Amino acid sequence: MINYLVDGIRKKEAPIVVGLDPMLKYVPEHLKKEAFAAFGETPEGAAEAIWQFNKQIVDAVQDLVPAVKPQIAMYEQFGVAGVQAFQKTVDYCRSKGLVIIGDIKRGDIGSTSEAYAVGHLGQVQIGESRFYGFHEDFATVNPYLGSDGVKPFLKVCAEEKKGIFVLVKTSNPSSGEFQDQMIGDKTLYTLVAEKVAQWGEEVMGDTYSYVGAVVGATYPEMGAALRKVMPKTYILVPGYGAQGGKGSDLKAFFNADGLGAIVNSSRGIIAAYQQEKYAQYGAEHFAEASRAAVLDMKEDLRQAWER
Amino acid sequence: MINYLVDGIRKKEAPIVVGLDPMLKYVPEHLKKEAFAAFGETPEGAAEAIWQFNKQIVDAVQDLVPAVKPQIAMYEQFGVAGVQAFQKTVDYCRSKGLVIIGDIKRGDIGSTSEAYAVGHLGQVQIGESRFYGFHEDFATVNPYLGSDGVKPFLKVCAEEKKGIFVLVKTSNPSSGEFQDQMIGDKTLYTLVAEKVAQWGEEVMGDTYSYVGAVVGATYPEMGAALRKVMPKTYILVPGYGAQGGKGSDLKAFFNADGLGAIVNSSRGIIAAYQQEKYAQYGAEHFAEASRAAVLDMKEDLRQAWER
Repeated sequence: MINYLVDGIRKKEAPIVVGLDPMLKYVPEHLKKEAFAAFGETPEGAAEAIWQFNKQIVDAVQDLVPAVKPQIAMYEQFGVAGVQAFQKTVDYCRSKGLVIIGDIKRGDIGSTSEAYAVGHLGQVQIGESRFYGFHEDFATVNPYLGSDGVKPFLKVCAEEKKGIFVLVKTSNPSSGEFQDQMIGDKTLYTLVAEKVAQWGEEVMGDTYSYVGAVVGATYPEMGAALRKVMPKTYILVPGYGAQGGKGSDLKAFFNADGLGAIVNSSRGIIAAYQQEKYAQYGAEHFAEASRAAVLDMKEDLRQAWER
Repeated sequence: MINYLVDGIRKKEAPIVVGLDPMLKYVPEHLKKEAFAAFGETPEGAAEAIWQFNKQIVDAVQDLVPAVKPQIAMYEQFGVAGVQAFQKTVDYCRSKGLVIIGDIKRGDIGSTSEAYAVGHLGQVQIGESRFYGFHEDFATVNPYLGSDGVKPFLKVCAEEKKGIFVLVKTSNPSSGEFQDQMIGDKTLYTLVAEKVAQWGEEVMGDTYSYVGAVVGATYPEMGAALRKVMPKTYILVPGYGAQGGKGSDLKAFFNADGLGAIVNSSRGIIAAYQQEKYAQYGAEHFAEASRAAVLDMKEDLRQAWER
């Protein structure tokens, strides 16, 4: 799957992943109205609204980007109905040939971590048959529990040729509270990065490993350092746009071949129509605004690259 | 909810939480046969089997213990059908007056962490109405992302009088890879524990805080030290029984008043009938075996306390 992702990035000339984090406040009124008319102002209605919202955005951007990243929390908040909308979104994106990075940030130990790996990336054994669960292509994983939490994912990734992105240095302001602490002469996030590189050696794709890392766009100097610690690791970069990361900050995350990183934008793309810059599209044409925002992001990254 | 939990522990004289981690291999053949006859060897069939399994165990132990801890990974592995079984289990346990600790180990940032908090502990706003999602009473939370990940939970906990247990020192063999690293003169887990105590001050119950901690039974010396770092923090102790933690190790996790900790057992209780010790019950009477295992655990803890 990492090879397929790299291919997609090359072909579409876009190291961009669209974050499908559909908060209700991003969903245009007309979609909410239709969904609530059918299902009431209920979790089922909300789930229908975010699913229709996602679908139109995916239709509008699927030829421009290689991957999407649904954030499962935004679906889980609506309970079982929301989780169903997550599943529909994943299935729909797969039908469009998009790589699906499940932003699930799971992490547990032993058989429990294996259950997450199986449920999100692999197949569960039931009697004589095996079934895919949510069937994403990649999942984000939290490393706090150490190798016991990560290795069950590696096993499933090897079987299924799928991948993970391990949280190394997250984009939020307080990420330093624990991640930046010095352990001997290096930070905790560097120690995690070294482990990521080591875990990744066990499951290599053609050029990059099945094991990627999450490093926030908001910390470009750290990105540059981490790029060297993990040369064969794809870096998923959140925090571009709404969280403050700029295109000019991003070059540090890439290798000299122009590969090695994929930049996420969520709100900046899916809620583009709410920005003054794209207001001319109006709420009716929100998906076209999202398309325009992807094209602008692509250009921003291209210019950053040329500087 | 922390007050209600402490009350329950006192009244039932059992600082015990039953881990509802229903792997299919724990479910007796007759229950699987019935479920598969109705729904086929499918995720729906598996979900029905684990739900029926849970229900009988809950019926058999609900008067003995104050709380249950469903591990959501064991449900998520069956996709949407599994998540439905999780919801049914939570609802059923609530109807029995049990405290529900959702072992979800979530952790993200800002609005995403808030979405998890709302979906699992709080109420989501849809139009003019508010709806509970999964509606557990407590959730386990991963601290790797720092305060940005935890504070949205605190907000929801304050509103709903619910709580969280933050991972401090987990029970698994590799937990030390990152958690035991020295930062200056203290370990990472001690630093996290200090934060837990600090976060907990904002949301105090009568004697204990809404913010608890997870510390594995497999590390009793660390438990004793952490007990002092977090005097008003309830400690959720996994790793008893199957993972190697013994009753005699547990005293360290409690305060002098006999409170301050609640010990989890999953496999040791729910799959008791598979142990030689409880083999006389047979698979048909698996729930009675679970009841016997709870009574034995209660006695083991009582004896540990008297030594």
